[in-house]
Amino acid sequence: MGDSTASLIEAYHDLNANIVDELEDEPSALEFMRYVAKNRPFVVRKAATEWQAFEKWDAAYLRKAMAGEDVKVAITPSGNADAVVRQEDASDVFMEPYEIEEPFGSFLDAIQESSGRREVDKANVRYAQTQNDNLRNEYSPLQSEVPSEISFARIALEQAADAINLWLGNDRSVTSLHKDNYENIYVQIRGQKHFTILPPVEMSCVNERLLPKGRFAPSDINVGQETDGLIVKLNTNAEPVPVATWDPDTPEEKTTRYSHLAKPLRVTLREGDMLYLPSLWYHKVSQTAGEEGFVCAVNYWYDMDFAGQHWVANQFVRDVYQDEQKKPQYPSLTISTGE
Amino acid sequence: MGDSTASLIEAYHDLNANIVDELEDEPSALEFMRYVAKNRPFVVRKAATEWQAFEKWDAAYLRKAMAGEDVKVAITPSGNADAVVRQEDASDVFMEPYEIEEPFGSFLDAIQESSGRREVDKANVRYAQTQNDNLRNEYSPLQSEVPSEISFARIALEQAADAINLWLGNDRSVTSLHKDNYENIYVQIRGQKHFTILPPVEMSCVNERLLPKGRFAPSDINVGQETDGLIVKLNTNAEPVPVATWDPDTPEEKTTRYSHLAKPLRVTLREGDMLYLPSLWYHKVSQTAGEEGFVCAVNYWYDMDFAGQHWVANQFVRDVYQDEQKKPQYPSLTISTGE
Ligand SMILES: O=C(O)CCC(=O)C(=O)O
Ligand SMILES: O=C(O)CCC(=O)C(=O)O
Repeated sequence: MGDSTASLIEAYHDLNANIVDELEDEPSALEFMRYVAKNRPFVVRKAATEWQAFEKWDAAYLRKAMAGEDVKVAITPSGNADAVVRQEDASDVFMEPYEIEEPFGSFLDAIQESSGRREVDKANVRYAQTQNDNLRNEYSPLQSEVPSEISFARIALEQAADAINLWLGNDRSVTSLHKDNYENIYVQIRGQKHFTILPPVEMSCVNERLLPKGRFAPSDINVGQETDGLIVKLNTNAEPVPVATWDPDTPEEKTTRYSHLAKPLRVTLREGDMLYLPSLWYHKVSQTAGEEGFVCAVNYWYDMDFAGQHWVANQFVRDVYQDEQKKPQYPSLTISTGE
Repeated sequence: MGDSTASLIEAYHDLNANIVDELEDEPSALEFMRYVAKNRPFVVRKAATEWQAFEKWDAAYLRKAMAGEDVKVAITPSGNADAVVRQEDASDVFMEPYEIEEPFGSFLDAIQESSGRREVDKANVRYAQTQNDNLRNEYSPLQSEVPSEISFARIALEQAADAINLWLGNDRSVTSLHKDNYENIYVQIRGQKHFTILPPVEMSCVNERLLPKGRFAPSDINVGQETDGLIVKLNTNAEPVPVATWDPDTPEEKTTRYSHLAKPLRVTLREGDMLYLPSLWYHKVSQTAGEEGFVCAVNYWYDMDFAGQHWVANQFVRDVYQDEQKKPQYPSLTISTGE
């Protein structure tokens, strides 16, 4: 009896080159739809160099445009919002960041000051990463400086963007491996993002585990004062959540029997570059600050289509993997040859 | 432990309405690509009423256009080319038809004469069904009377049709349930075709079995004489082939434990109607003769895309099903609750 899950991953790699396509120009809606149909990523270098955001968004301009606005900021001890943190008792928890609101100006100051000091800076790490359509809300003064839609996506997918998110941080933040139920158009404005991505068929490589949820929070004595000395607060009311615990950058640790079959793709977005990250692809994202010591990107989330086979086939891959975890490894029956 | 294969089929039906979409007009390339991406069928009623074939192809015209041409004809005892036939020893064989070449005129005579006599006619059944791009070869006198490409498909899929096939027979022929590695645009010219179709996720419903191959042939005494009295010749050199043995029209027979979950879709094509049958969909096809006692259709096969997830996900569904057949049904482990 073969191992169907291993065959799936191997067949996928036999039939799909291990590269991210680079397109000369933004695709037409039809060209884009071909990529959506195949659930394959692409990059368009310098796609956004005509955007006003690309021309204007230096630190001084952003400070002026956002003067007087408060923004939500995620705060973590080491730049790991929405990530697995090992407890003293060796158990793992899926941690959400401490969230504060602060004036945009002081937020950007803090980002710029601690940028490039990953090794030495022991202060908490800030990242504006709310993923709740923040560009059309908190950051609305900047909204008109990016397109209101990615037109090829709007036409192909016959829908408006569900969320437009601004991401602002520095090289001290890393977004852990995860996936989203969205077709994602990700555009780099300042600095660089380093994406490590895996196709959905590699679900069984990422060691998804059900983990309790927690949140970083100031210890009671510090409330409202300092954000140093964040402690872990377990959320004992929340259901455990499925979390990918394998890290493609330390591939020998926390493995499953399939992790060695994964072939992570790596792509760096430089200023003005655009990435199409197809729905359900795993992605881990790190960053390099731009000239002014910050990193800024904007992404457009379009709802994925749950019809057809795409969603259900990926649920099936997961179900089969999970069943296998529960099943005793009995030998399979051998049919007597009658001798 | 759930049954992942059952969940897959049920989730598919939860997320996909059990209908074949009817489009007002031929789709644009982009609209078509959305259907390809979802791997969902559609019908366009009266899409081909402007085709010359639709206007001209009555029996007299066809006889004249094809005068002097020989055509390949499949001959079977009961209209079941490429079908499972039960042997006297109760074993099943996948039978291919006896093939002859005959003048087009006498072929069409035979088709028209035996049409509508399914109950009484005991003579062998003829069907021109070679599926080898016959319209651009044997039937080339008729080729210019249908479009050389289905333009929305050629543009969307960025390729020329791999084969254009003409199908000519009567109501005595039925094409058994099977699937093809093609995106299929099927256009009815005369008479009706009744399609019963199943999505690829229903693979585990169709009771695919590995069967030996055989071919109908005249018994040795008859060679070159008569085609009555065809006998079964086993092809002992050929590898057994996987064949769907469940029949959606007799759903209680030859079932698997999943057959009851299948929701076959039924669609009848009338003269001028066009069907998009997506790659890997199972289809069974029966027919009703038109006014002149024959049934004629033309279909365009475009190569499916083996990249992305579509092909490998469907292989995975099959592998999991086949593994399950081989596995003893041990109980799954129960985790002690510590009480
Ligand atoms: O930019 C990042 O840090 C993460 C981006 C991300 O996860 C997303 O766009 O879904
Ligand atoms: O028309 C028929 O009899 C069968 C059609 C078919 O199987 C096909 O188009 O693939």
